Amino acid sequence: MKYDFKKVNGGVCAAKGFSANGLNCGINPDKNKNDLCLVYSDVMCNTAAVYTQNKVKGAPIVVTKRNLEKSGGKSQAIIANSKNANTANADGEQKAERMCILAAQELDISPEQVIVASTGVIGEVLPIEPIENAVKKLKEGLSYDGNERAVNAIMTTDTVKKEFAVQFIIDGKTCTLGGMAKGSGMIHPNMATTLNFITTDTAIESELMQKALSEVVKVTYNCLTVDGDTSTNDMISVMANGMAGNEMICTENEYYEIFKEALYEVLMNLTRMLAKDGEGATKLIECTCEKASDLDTAITVAKSIVRSPLVKSGIFGSDANWGRILCAIGYAEADFDINKVDVDVSSGAGSIAACRNGLIIGFSEEEAKKVLLEDEIFIDVKLNNGDISAKAWGCDLTYDYVKINGDYRS
Amino acid sequence: MKYDFKKVNGGVCAAKGFSANGLNCGINPDKNKNDLCLVYSDVMCNTAAVYTQNKVKGAPIVVTKRNLEKSGGKSQAIIANSKNANTANADGEQKAERMCILAAQELDISPEQVIVASTGVIGEVLPIEPIENAVKKLKEGLSYDGNERAVNAIMTTDTVKKEFAVQFIIDGKTCTLGGMAKGSGMIHPNMATTLNFITTDTAIESELMQKALSEVVKVTYNCLTVDGDTSTNDMISVMANGMAGNEMICTENEYYEIFKEALYEVLMNLTRMLAKDGEGATKLIECTCEKASDLDTAITVAKSIVRSPLVKSGIFGSDANWGRILCAIGYAEADFDINKVDVDVSSGAGSIAACRNGLIIGFSEEEAKKVLLEDEIFIDVKLNNGDISAKAWGCDLTYDYVKINGDYRS
Repeated sequence: MKYDFKKVNGGVCAAKGFSANGLNCGINPDKNKNDLCLVYSDVMCNTAAVYTQNKVKGAPIVVTKRNLEKSGGKSQAIIANSKNANTANADGEQKAERMCILAAQELDISPEQVIVASTGVIGEVLPIEPIENAVKKLKEGLSYDGNERAVNAIMTTDTVKKEFAVQFIIDGKTCTLGGMAKGSGMIHPNMATTLNFITTDTAIESELMQKALSEVVKVTYNCLTVDGDTSTNDMISVMANGMAGNEMICTENEYYEIFKEALYEVLMNLTRMLAKDGEGATKLIECTCEKASDLDTAITVAKSIVRSPLVKSGIFGSDANWGRILCAIGYAEADFDINKVDVDVSSGAGSIAACRNGLIIGFSEEEAKKVLLEDEIFIDVKLNNGDISAKAWGCDLTYDYVKINGDYRS
Repeated sequence: MKYDFKKVNGGVCAAKGFSANGLNCGINPDKNKNDLCLVYSDVMCNTAAVYTQNKVKGAPIVVTKRNLEKSGGKSQAIIANSKNANTANADGEQKAERMCILAAQELDISPEQVIVASTGVIGEVLPIEPIENAVKKLKEGLSYDGNERAVNAIMTTDTVKKEFAVQFIIDGKTCTLGGMAKGSGMIHPNMATTLNFITTDTAIESELMQKALSEVVKVTYNCLTVDGDTSTNDMISVMANGMAGNEMICTENEYYEIFKEALYEVLMNLTRMLAKDGEGATKLIECTCEKASDLDTAITVAKSIVRSPLVKSGIFGSDANWGRILCAIGYAEADFDINKVDVDVSSGAGSIAACRNGLIIGFSEEEAKKVLLEDEIFIDVKLNNGDISAKAWGCDLTYDYVKINGDYRS
């Protein structure tokens, strides 16, 4: 029985004891756009994180990983900038470490208790002086409602801010779990995620939280693709400060299950938001692969469809070219019998049976057009080979994607 | 020492004894566009073929495969249509078999000695009557210079015809090997190819030819990607009728090596043409991955780059965003040390050093723009980990790709 979560506002500050701030320190020449943020917990947090598997790892990823190893999975703050990814530069790690030192000094904690992140252009040297000059003011402006200033600071080509938070009861205590995310292009997480910061006041052990995070990331962020590219800077961190007052969760009991479901609820919603706001996107595409023999097969098939440029551009044009969906299913690297496959395409405007037993069936062009003109398109694939499902999210491929990426560095 | 091949005209009719024809039979409402073709050899041919690995196999693929198994690798004709892929329809195989019967009857051969192919929209029933009515005229119009009419018949979204042929000496005899290809969108061959018909008058055994074909396809067509989609109808066939008069090649001797090199020369050039004419493309992208430890690594890295939508759109915009190339190298599923990687980008207008030892280095924006404004861009990656190389081909991602695929079925 799925837990009935209560949706709340506040993003990364929704949970007790988390404050945040964001400002423009000068890395971004547009003074109206924040480019530096800070997130802080009143008390130390158990922390879990997942990072990009790209061989090119942004310097912040390398430093954060090292910090969490040194601190034994504890952190108390996040410092992050946008506009520059601090990646593929010779002095990257030194700069990322400096950012941790600056934050740590202001907050009176150790540098290895700081998570550092950067997002933006790769291969341009990160200017550290603007950060040096702004960090005092950044710390002084921390507030329990500073989440909006913070999320604004991590946005790059995003057109909307992405925040989501839920509340639930564990051990008789009200717990909150929320977060903020950014990501628009260069999204095809592989054992990793985009830039995402999750906070919670639940008391839970680091290792257990890491387990929950890895499992939830596998079926949410890792099933997200905007353009098939896995970024060098993808990461997700979860900080748990225990201020809800529940008894520490240290086994996979019913409370662990509720916590994991809450994490799924938040990450799944952030994933949908990231897909819907993909660079140039006009439509969200959500693909469910059902009745698969195993989870990996379901995931592989669902991702194959949302990744296909032909499916994506067809949906942009509201073109009922079901053959492309079938083609994408057919080249997915998984084992199943194509002659048992059914496909349905739906939206708020209706539903069309596109394929039965691997064959495309007749349909009304008028009906199909109505369905495809909506801004959220659902593709449902049944492999009829088992009872496991998975979802994947993506968006249409549009002229604007090309326009945005034809000249990103300006 | 690489053989010095002589380039000749004639495409699929360049080799001795091959005639062809193409006409509009009515499947394509545009009377000026051919939609049905025939290729015929005066004598029986040893035949080799490679097909799509997509689980959704066009009915023509299924039937051709079966024919070649029944005939013991012998064929004497090809019948192919465009505008309709005859795929994912309930009566597909029956229709594909009917096409073989019709061609066989006109040419006085067996149906299983006919290769059948279709290309176009998936999931629309193939109208067989136009083909029934046209096949007599199609056969009567066969000529030794009919290659242009034939290649016109297999084109769909291609904007230029793709033909290539070379001549060489084996055993003192002049041999010719040539072919025609089509393919524009839905190209990302995986152990397969686009629609390609190769003919030669060299005398060579089927099994040996199949071996050469598989090896050459691996480093040409399988390294081609326009949009990452592997089609349901990809195939390549090679027919060898022995009319050059050389002694039958039945071992991997020096003559086999020359033959294989000729096959590489033709397939590589057709591959480049397919990449350059990718849907909406304004630029060819050729990526060479050198100094790799093994062939699969070199191929994987090269393909990763040419497949990346971010690299492709950046090149469309002539934007020197080297970070994207590095990112694509970084997520390639292969083993190498990113800290040893060098990248150079060049064209007819010059060459830029983009990356040394995994770090992006400074460069002149003006120089880079000059290089990227050309219509053939070469990306050279050195893994500095061995001495094996491979190439991959692709094209830029443009507004026109989106436009063409936003409404393909009209």
